[in-house]
Amino acid sequence: MTHFGDRLYEAVARVGTPVLVGLDPRLSSMPLALRRDVDESEPRAVAGAFTRFCCDVIDVVAPLVPAVKPQAAFFEQLGPAGMQALAETVAHARQRGLLVIMDGKRNDIGSTAAAYADAYLGADSVWGADALTVSPYLGDDGLVPFFKVAKQRAAGVFVLVKTSNPGGGLFQDLVADATPVYQHVANYVEARANESLGPCGYGAVGAVVGATYPDQLAELRNIMSHTWILVPGFGEQGGTAKDVAAAMDAEGQGAIINSSRAIIFAHSRLEFKDSFGDARWQGAVEAATKSMIDQLRSETPAGQLACG
Amino acid sequence: MTHFGDRLYEAVARVGTPVLVGLDPRLSSMPLALRRDVDESEPRAVAGAFTRFCCDVIDVVAPLVPAVKPQAAFFEQLGPAGMQALAETVAHARQRGLLVIMDGKRNDIGSTAAAYADAYLGADSVWGADALTVSPYLGDDGLVPFFKVAKQRAAGVFVLVKTSNPGGGLFQDLVADATPVYQHVANYVEARANESLGPCGYGAVGAVVGATYPDQLAELRNIMSHTWILVPGFGEQGGTAKDVAAAMDAEGQGAIINSSRAIIFAHSRLEFKDSFGDARWQGAVEAATKSMIDQLRSETPAGQLACG
Repeated sequence: MTHFGDRLYEAVARVGTPVLVGLDPRLSSMPLALRRDVDESEPRAVAGAFTRFCCDVIDVVAPLVPAVKPQAAFFEQLGPAGMQALAETVAHARQRGLLVIMDGKRNDIGSTAAAYADAYLGADSVWGADALTVSPYLGDDGLVPFFKVAKQRAAGVFVLVKTSNPGGGLFQDLVADATPVYQHVANYVEARANESLGPCGYGAVGAVVGATYPDQLAELRNIMSHTWILVPGFGEQGGTAKDVAAAMDAEGQGAIINSSRAIIFAHSRLEFKDSFGDARWQGAVEAATKSMIDQLRSETPAGQLACG
Repeated sequence: MTHFGDRLYEAVARVGTPVLVGLDPRLSSMPLALRRDVDESEPRAVAGAFTRFCCDVIDVVAPLVPAVKPQAAFFEQLGPAGMQALAETVAHARQRGLLVIMDGKRNDIGSTAAAYADAYLGADSVWGADALTVSPYLGDDGLVPFFKVAKQRAAGVFVLVKTSNPGGGLFQDLVADATPVYQHVANYVEARANESLGPCGYGAVGAVVGATYPDQLAELRNIMSHTWILVPGFGEQGGTAKDVAAAMDAEGQGAIINSSRAIIFAHSRLEFKDSFGDARWQGAVEAATKSMIDQLRSETPAGQLACG
């Protein structure tokens, strides 16, 4: 299996865009046709609707984008049946040639961290994702077990560095030794990325940095020059194409830009409602994805085909 | 439903000990009788063995301790079948009158954090735990959704403050405004505990502080005088009864002391191997639990029966 950083580089280059589609299923936001006959109080029924919805979204975006990001929380909410839906969603995305970044923000120490990594990372793991998001509060021995498993399985790990939410600064922006906490985390992540470089110049260890803090995003791109950056917060949370351009290198590589609700629930967005609406919701998903790709292209170079 | 802080207080008082049994199932460490006929490559079979093992442990410790702490990672490692085992384990523990603290260290923002809380907290949630551990890196709007759901369901939330692992200090010990990061988190947690006080004087928001840093544990007890402290790191990780005594108030309340492997895999510990061994492994669990209770009682007051 090829190094994760290279697989991501090639996937971005193949489609010429770094758009990452977030799969955050919620029954109440889904198209009517998929939820009309679903008993809300029956987790198995809702999980079935989640699987169908996510697989349908995947079918639309598979030719357009490099990767998808299922949000574990929404599946976990349904219990074991939801976890089955998550497994089916991941399998379908991989089958359609998409990379899968599991958004689980897992974190623990020692063998417990290794158990999480083991669960989610690698084609032969139960959920079979290509990468996993993790939370850094536990420090070095809370992160190394994830990196180790990722290395064994040519998978990736994205560490939270500077998150997109308004209250993210409460602890992340505390300044120690003239450096905010998130920059301490960034320095650590860049060192780990450097230790796990692939031929395309990026490591298997990446970072999560929100689009909603564009100055810090640009600064962190400079500090973490070998680190893939996963950028949430584009669109609905306020980040613009210009903001996220700062996360990319000169080839339009090194960053993937996430959008979740604005794409998967595009059928209820004002701009797509009339032309598509509920019945042609997959058309709305396609239009919203293409619209985001165009927005990004107006401000950033399309990813180059060959690396190195 | 009674306030979580009060339920925990009463549970500790009822058995007269704050011992919390961690349920970290691993097939290779389990008694031979429970794993002999299990096909390791078959998640359903392993999950079945996990359920049986955890329920058997619960049956032994139910009359002795106030609560158990299932570690989600080990169940997740088995995929959907493992999550089913987790649900059955939680249900059995509650049925036996134990409080269940789900160790998931979940974290996210907004509606995603709410989805995690919704999944794990409250008798009517899919997994039905009494409390959940969470990780604080995302800040205020990463934590408030957990507190809100906990309040609605009279459940508890334990926020990581100072963890027991050797590398925990990498970010937690950074000093900002003459105060280490973990103390900033502690101040925040104590404020939230104060906002969620029950009649027994403790909040529904608690903290995780490792036994392996006894000086900080004592200091944090003082700072967080209304906060339940969940203390990992006793025994195998090096924390002593004297160390953890500092986490309790004068009534022996306000802290619960976790032990996982030393109790659940007691059949393979040198001191219990000869008298119990593999065949009588439940006897070893009982002896190890009682031994830990005795160790703690030698250094700390037994929890008082009535609060307030």
